[in-house]
Amino acid sequence: MLDVCLLGCGGMMPLPYRSLTALMMRYNGNSILIDCGEGTQVSVKAQGWSFKPIDLICFTHYHADHISGLPGLLLTMGNAERTEPLLLAGPKGLEHVVNALRVIAPELPFPIQFHEWSGPYEVLERNGYRLEAFKVNHNILCYGYSITIPRVGKFDLERAKKAGIPQKYWSHLQKGETIQEGEQMFTPDMVLGEERKGIKLTYCTDSRPTPAIVNHARGADLFICEGMYGEPEKEAKAVEYKHMTFEEAAVMAKEAQVKELWLTHFSPSLVRAEEYMDSVRAVFPNSKAGRDRKCVELHYDE
Amino acid sequence: MLDVCLLGCGGMMPLPYRSLTALMMRYNGNSILIDCGEGTQVSVKAQGWSFKPIDLICFTHYHADHISGLPGLLLTMGNAERTEPLLLAGPKGLEHVVNALRVIAPELPFPIQFHEWSGPYEVLERNGYRLEAFKVNHNILCYGYSITIPRVGKFDLERAKKAGIPQKYWSHLQKGETIQEGEQMFTPDMVLGEERKGIKLTYCTDSRPTPAIVNHARGADLFICEGMYGEPEKEAKAVEYKHMTFEEAAVMAKEAQVKELWLTHFSPSLVRAEEYMDSVRAVFPNSKAGRDRKCVELHYDE
Repeated sequence: MLDVCLLGCGGMMPLPYRSLTALMMRYNGNSILIDCGEGTQVSVKAQGWSFKPIDLICFTHYHADHISGLPGLLLTMGNAERTEPLLLAGPKGLEHVVNALRVIAPELPFPIQFHEWSGPYEVLERNGYRLEAFKVNHNILCYGYSITIPRVGKFDLERAKKAGIPQKYWSHLQKGETIQEGEQMFTPDMVLGEERKGIKLTYCTDSRPTPAIVNHARGADLFICEGMYGEPEKEAKAVEYKHMTFEEAAVMAKEAQVKELWLTHFSPSLVRAEEYMDSVRAVFPNSKAGRDRKCVELHYDE
Repeated sequence: MLDVCLLGCGGMMPLPYRSLTALMMRYNGNSILIDCGEGTQVSVKAQGWSFKPIDLICFTHYHADHISGLPGLLLTMGNAERTEPLLLAGPKGLEHVVNALRVIAPELPFPIQFHEWSGPYEVLERNGYRLEAFKVNHNILCYGYSITIPRVGKFDLERAKKAGIPQKYWSHLQKGETIQEGEQMFTPDMVLGEERKGIKLTYCTDSRPTPAIVNHARGADLFICEGMYGEPEKEAKAVEYKHMTFEEAAVMAKEAQVKELWLTHFSPSLVRAEEYMDSVRAVFPNSKAGRDRKCVELHYDE
């Protein structure tokens, strides 16, 4: 199960009634944060989630509304006496930006590790999930992310028997363990059918629509995508500032055949996102307007 | 009239129910901000005050909870198409710290000017107010501030008559104007009595109690002072981290004979400041616990 919380749904600047866009996910005892704007740590607290299990913070890009909250979050994690290393990942330039911001957070009781993306597509496997970073199209280098929890195939009794694997090893192999017995090696693929569809979430802000986003979001259980402007007539503005309208995001959701779309990163000029959702749902029915701390648990298909 | 708003009353980290300590003052069309932590701009918006008239931002020191909100605020001011210069003032090192933080706010449509304090006491006269900066005692270089709105003396009819000043100039001289008539020069002091008590506000966070704070707060209409800990038994902790207990602040308020004390910069561990106020009022009766956006208008004495 992937526990998902959209910590905020605003773009550009934090507002009294709308936090900046950031995403937190909990999986199997670890937490991942994507982006950390001014006030993101407040939203984590308001949600009642803990900073302690965060072992990876990814950044889409280095505009202030996506990283301005990092020094404060690092200090808060330090004040909680964290000593475990923290991995930060983001477009190239990460270490430079973070070290500059640390002018006000120079001393931390835990080490920071950096992982910079530079190619059009990069993968990080970690703690049982797969994180894919893919370049999008903003006015500075910017990445979208897909996080996938893979799911092994069903236990295949006939195969296990045919291969002559002792029954006492079946449950171990099913859990992904490899067994050595004398000269013989038993591996999970000897008892399992084809890998099944896992859990997939795709997150994209800030960008114009691109074919890469559609490709990477394909079949996602949840596609969280920026929609800076609700009004379709603001498409010219979206083009100018390299953002999207709600409808542009919905068209991508439809093309990518995702299960559900959440819109986020609303312009401060957009007061009630819901007003524009009817025309969005005409394009892609399962569309939702994001709101601060909108949450969902994503499970394997039954 | 000096319009005062304590934007937050927290220390260390912003909380869902408590913003970081910062102060905004409005006087005669200009606004002054002291400190700008993560979320300070949200509190300004929640109060409904405008960023536009801010022409001076002072910093007490460069711990993150006092300056982490600056890049976001600068960008928000820039997004509102500000072109007027903005003056930043603070302990030496200001330009270095601000320039480092601007890694995420490199382009602004207005110029930034820097004014750094280094002596134990410095004064800035500006837009009809006097700002005094005085060194306090924290674990890094830190200043307290007094802001004073001076008040001219009463109009002295007898003096004006004796000096033979034409009646048509009286109101101009009373307003502080100087009049040149041929070879003759008439100045305000020729028609005014002694300068009267103006408006004074003193602001101090983060520090141990010091005689300088008492001296600079003397006679203030409002003394806003840190009280990191409500519990008197936390004095040892206050000494260790160079902060104060509520009672230590109250003792200074009493010694300085201020009119009113507001406590602020509460530790995240302190949930209800009001619980400790009885013992504070036993020391200095007119003590109030700060809260987010606690406001007052300070007027001249009648």
